[in-house]
Amino acid sequence: MNATASAPAGSYLGIDIGGTKVALCRWRPQGRLQRLDEFPSAGPDETFENIGARLRGRLPRDLVAIGIACGGPLDAKRGLILSPPNLPGWDEVPITRLLTHLTGAPSFLVNDANANALAEWRFGAGRDCDSLIYLTAGTGMGAGIVLNGRLVTGANGNAGEVGHWRLAARGPEGYHKRGSFEGYCSGGALPELVQYLPTAERPADWRVWRQAHPTAKAIGRAADAGDATAQAVLRLSGEKLGAALALLIDALDPECIVAGNLYRRCRRWLEPAMRRVINAEALSPGAQTCSIRSARLGERIGDYGAICAALHGLGVLG
Amino acid sequence: MNATASAPAGSYLGIDIGGTKVALCRWRPQGRLQRLDEFPSAGPDETFENIGARLRGRLPRDLVAIGIACGGPLDAKRGLILSPPNLPGWDEVPITRLLTHLTGAPSFLVNDANANALAEWRFGAGRDCDSLIYLTAGTGMGAGIVLNGRLVTGANGNAGEVGHWRLAARGPEGYHKRGSFEGYCSGGALPELVQYLPTAERPADWRVWRQAHPTAKAIGRAADAGDATAQAVLRLSGEKLGAALALLIDALDPECIVAGNLYRRCRRWLEPAMRRVINAEALSPGAQTCSIRSARLGERIGDYGAICAALHGLGVLG
Repeated sequence: MNATASAPAGSYLGIDIGGTKVALCRWRPQGRLQRLDEFPSAGPDETFENIGARLRGRLPRDLVAIGIACGGPLDAKRGLILSPPNLPGWDEVPITRLLTHLTGAPSFLVNDANANALAEWRFGAGRDCDSLIYLTAGTGMGAGIVLNGRLVTGANGNAGEVGHWRLAARGPEGYHKRGSFEGYCSGGALPELVQYLPTAERPADWRVWRQAHPTAKAIGRAADAGDATAQAVLRLSGEKLGAALALLIDALDPECIVAGNLYRRCRRWLEPAMRRVINAEALSPGAQTCSIRSARLGERIGDYGAICAALHGLGVLG
Repeated sequence: MNATASAPAGSYLGIDIGGTKVALCRWRPQGRLQRLDEFPSAGPDETFENIGARLRGRLPRDLVAIGIACGGPLDAKRGLILSPPNLPGWDEVPITRLLTHLTGAPSFLVNDANANALAEWRFGAGRDCDSLIYLTAGTGMGAGIVLNGRLVTGANGNAGEVGHWRLAARGPEGYHKRGSFEGYCSGGALPELVQYLPTAERPADWRVWRQAHPTAKAIGRAADAGDATAQAVLRLSGEKLGAALALLIDALDPECIVAGNLYRRCRRWLEPAMRRVINAEALSPGAQTCSIRSARLGERIGDYGAICAALHGLGVLG
């Protein structure tokens, strides 16, 4: 499906503002996405100077709109970035007003989970779907939800905060909550899981294991190399991923769920446990028909997400 | 909000097929809903004869469409009723085809939770909202979800099955699952809750209490009359209602949640515990802004739901 009114002809600029870098890209309908520049993240003034310097004298004449993707909290309607934890100094930055002032083009701000959901839906793993749930499954855990061909933003712009769901009374902490979905299934919390393994699977040196704070990538590699503890950690994470997905399937019966980095990397270890729990916990036929996929856009998701923020703002996407 | 294209002028017929009775009603835009008839539920042939007898020679000349609301499972797209547990003999009944054949008017089938969600949204407690979650909170527990001004039906037509959500590893059974939302918060399962009370709150004669299988209504009345056990049962149910609502608020950030019969009757005892858990478990500002209301249509919800099934089928509502 994915039926969207066709985007007006011309150029679109996308700005992906992340905790480590800011990327600038350009896109045209029927054309390829082109990365224009990137620079390390800094305060808003310096970042804005960088963007201005890059665009000055080189602004596309056919510029239609600018999209900005950024981590929350933010106020999408008013175009304000509101002190995201990974962007010190970005306090109430009226980013869309500033960019419109600079370029004359309409500018739109969307939070990164929602922007990335639109990106995977329009350009990535969910192009054939009319409803899709995108799970960030990166350092944190958040979701972007597309239903009936439209992005679900929520009354306060906060829809998709499933990382905050409590899945167990006790358990690893994530999103300031013990036993949360983010605590069990985000890359940031993965090393904590070792202490919640059944005693028989917990290695004698689990305190050392945990204190080494291996990255999710390292845990995935260790599992691939045969490390039983890493495999058990990913199995536990997969079970809780299955529990959360069962809740989403029973409530929303989505065509497809697309999961980000952690799932893509560790799918081999996560998927069997996840599947087992979904089949036990979610209703038929949703448990069988919902297609669970790895995100497809990889490192380019931020660029596509920013372009999608522009298309969404113009009302031609979701 | 609730902006919907205005319904085509003329008469609409609604048929609410329930486990105990079948009701027939008529509605005109800007007019009042008029109950035409009702008869005890029976097999599909007898029911169909009753409907035919009532309409023969008295079919509105300006009939626009017919809506049918019925408990699941059903296939809304194909207009088939598929052996609902409370309607013996209704196996693969092509209800919309039969009615269109009888009347010449387009006919549409919607499951009762969805039909009732549309009814409370268009005619009841959620008229001011653009997004609403309706919880049946009757004998069972199901939901109808309206987001972005549209009903969420799901890829298989099964969205809203939150009664199947597991809220605790052990707990009362509902929807064939221990510790489910339906097990904790439906009228049918309420008497079971007594055995899951903390020991201090459990009366010595809890087995007798439970075996008497008091109705939800009776439990509500007992609580009102000062019965400490009934109050504790409703408090526990309220806590779990809060836990489920916190999941819905974090995931969908709805403007409003409308809860049916059980909540309306026992609100005094359910609400404080529910509120406490929502405030502890759901994110701000959704936990504060989401308005939690009692359903307003009462006994008439089935009639309005059936009319909404017709409006939805015509594409003028949700």
